Amino acid sequence: MAADTAPPAHAPVATVTGLLSGIAGTGTDKIRGGYTRPVYSTAELDLRSWFIEQAEKRGLAVDTDRNGAIWAWWDVPGGDRSNSLVTGSHLDSVPGGGPFDGPLGVASALVAVDILKTRMTTPTRPLAVVVFPEEEGSRFGVACLGSRLMTGAIDPDKARNLQDPDGSTFADVARANGLDPRFLGRDHKLLGQIGAFVELHVEQGRGLIDLDQPIAIASSILGHGRWRLSIDGQGNHAGTTLMADRRDPMVSAARTVVAIRDIARKQDHARATVGRLQPVPGGTNVIASRVDFWLDVRHPDDAVTAALVQGIHGQARIIAAEEGCSVELREESLSPTVHFDPGLQKELQLALPRAPVLDTGAGHDAGVLAPYLPTAMVFVRNPSGVSHSPEEHVMDEDAETGARTLADALHRLMA
Amino acid sequence: MAADTAPPAHAPVATVTGLLSGIAGTGTDKIRGGYTRPVYSTAELDLRSWFIEQAEKRGLAVDTDRNGAIWAWWDVPGGDRSNSLVTGSHLDSVPGGGPFDGPLGVASALVAVDILKTRMTTPTRPLAVVVFPEEEGSRFGVACLGSRLMTGAIDPDKARNLQDPDGSTFADVARANGLDPRFLGRDHKLLGQIGAFVELHVEQGRGLIDLDQPIAIASSILGHGRWRLSIDGQGNHAGTTLMADRRDPMVSAARTVVAIRDIARKQDHARATVGRLQPVPGGTNVIASRVDFWLDVRHPDDAVTAALVQGIHGQARIIAAEEGCSVELREESLSPTVHFDPGLQKELQLALPRAPVLDTGAGHDAGVLAPYLPTAMVFVRNPSGVSHSPEEHVMDEDAETGARTLADALHRLMA
Repeated sequence: MAADTAPPAHAPVATVTGLLSGIAGTGTDKIRGGYTRPVYSTAELDLRSWFIEQAEKRGLAVDTDRNGAIWAWWDVPGGDRSNSLVTGSHLDSVPGGGPFDGPLGVASALVAVDILKTRMTTPTRPLAVVVFPEEEGSRFGVACLGSRLMTGAIDPDKARNLQDPDGSTFADVARANGLDPRFLGRDHKLLGQIGAFVELHVEQGRGLIDLDQPIAIASSILGHGRWRLSIDGQGNHAGTTLMADRRDPMVSAARTVVAIRDIARKQDHARATVGRLQPVPGGTNVIASRVDFWLDVRHPDDAVTAALVQGIHGQARIIAAEEGCSVELREESLSPTVHFDPGLQKELQLALPRAPVLDTGAGHDAGVLAPYLPTAMVFVRNPSGVSHSPEEHVMDEDAETGARTLADALHRLMA
Repeated sequence: MAADTAPPAHAPVATVTGLLSGIAGTGTDKIRGGYTRPVYSTAELDLRSWFIEQAEKRGLAVDTDRNGAIWAWWDVPGGDRSNSLVTGSHLDSVPGGGPFDGPLGVASALVAVDILKTRMTTPTRPLAVVVFPEEEGSRFGVACLGSRLMTGAIDPDKARNLQDPDGSTFADVARANGLDPRFLGRDHKLLGQIGAFVELHVEQGRGLIDLDQPIAIASSILGHGRWRLSIDGQGNHAGTTLMADRRDPMVSAARTVVAIRDIARKQDHARATVGRLQPVPGGTNVIASRVDFWLDVRHPDDAVTAALVQGIHGQARIIAAEEGCSVELREESLSPTVHFDPGLQKELQLALPRAPVLDTGAGHDAGVLAPYLPTAMVFVRNPSGVSHSPEEHVMDEDAETGARTLADALHRLMA
């Protein structure tokens, strides 16, 4: 009956919200709210299957690399993949995360391919949509594990021995998911093929709310580090020890937490957080003998970050001495500020002339790749301003604007 | 050869330090230092065997009651046990506790029996040495569980369902150790037989250090309670959330911990402690969405305790409001101040005229028994002033003085 109806010149253009509604039921967290989709969990594996299905529906050539990233290629005639244009993000989440952190960039990349297909039959540069594994580090403790492995930024032996909370090693989990752990690590060939990487991501702060704009271009990722503070005092009986006789590390730690906030407040653009704190032994009726807590500090200027931590250490020592305690501060990790490729950033600004340029305090695979190849990021407004939480949000209209914007930017980079 | 040597009129008198040296290797904690002897652990069971052996060596009649307390009786001729005199303590410990908290009272009771046997062939009142189980509550979470069961101060159903950190119920563990869980609970007959209970215990504060005395008589156990504070804020990303945009419950909790200390400092005899604190979700790079922490408050006057908690709650609300958070305070337990029997206390003062009278902030089986029968306590100086810690200490000379003092007090109560 419809034999005489001509097929459309191109497949229909999906919407970002339509694509995301297809995975809205995957990995929901009944306790925390939002989504819990750790890498290689049933939820994340379901999302991978969904991605592969969507990619194949678009005629893209799908393969999984030695480190577990999935690549969906829209090849040029002849199939040469040098100087490729790559976009994409991740599908894993933090515990109780929102629906957009990761999947928005993947869905927008698929829609951008749809849009580009309305403009050209074949791309002028090979284009790939990528899904990186373990971007959040919520299962094995190392954020951006997939891109770190691909670039060699992490030793493969260290990665193989990472353990999840159940004690499974990354090597075992990778093997169970079809990878050969011996081949984890730097992927020279793949890295050499990428001419540019553009990642679209939901904004994780309030920059676009304050500027009343839907889309931003990233300038840099703030340098950040983690430090562990251990305050030793004197464990004792909560009932029999007079207030005057105490050397209570909990009081010392509490005063230090307040000091950290006060110090960070006085420094423009600084962020300092204590989100994890453990008293030892941790009994209700016991004055703690030790309190361990972790400090996260970020600032665009790495020298300022170092000065902030030094200032915090000094203040912590003064407080500890006043409380009859002692304090030790140890660096656990330190990542310098990443500046995205200026040339690529300029191309994006030409494609998106109204978009403001913002830095971000969050880490991303684009930041890990930045030292190895030109990378850029596009942020989509998050009207809640809240991230790593079920409250994270993106308005439908902004999501579609984001995908169109990404398509325009990629189109420009094809020229 | 020695057939013509007359046996001594009485068995030799042991020393407290000699007795304690026999268990110095039992339940040592290689990680925390000191001793970890939770109820019904191998270590505590070994201490029970040691006690039974020592009791039988002294010709005492040993039996275990329906709630797992061990009783070693020095009976009057005829065996009537009404109006008995009871002394003793416990053998279980907190994790990483000292060698004296509990065992000192048990060893001193055995030595007191030895001393009394040098003064009389049979007692004029039946005398029992008791070992109560789970005084510390370090395995099943309820302190003085044995005496609470015996007096009916805890519902036996609640006790049966208590779980240890491995998920074993108290009913299962009791069954595995020869008790019938159906018969746990108030022991009318045994309670009715006790005319007085005198517990000797290492002091858990610095009262005797400051007074330069080896032995004190207890007047009262401070009333105390536990409250849980929950502060809700806004979970968010530690990197992307500007300091000015935060509603961080960790900062609110930290300010409250400092306020609690400051409030308690201003009130004579008050003790207020936060020894347990849990941020949710507790990630290094996440601003917590909630912080739960526990408040322990003690004061001799229950009205002052109530006023202190009210003051702390008010201050916590002010701080939470300033930080954009909210706070909830819930009572988890509340024990009024226990005043020991004035008549028994007076008898002890006549037997020990030089001993000062002190109150204590620590709970004891003697405090649980106090509403049901005349009880009293004797404290032995702890030169470290530190309790629930490997640093707890008793000098040899003070330990022997304690046992002689206990014998003198019991002797007087026999009259």
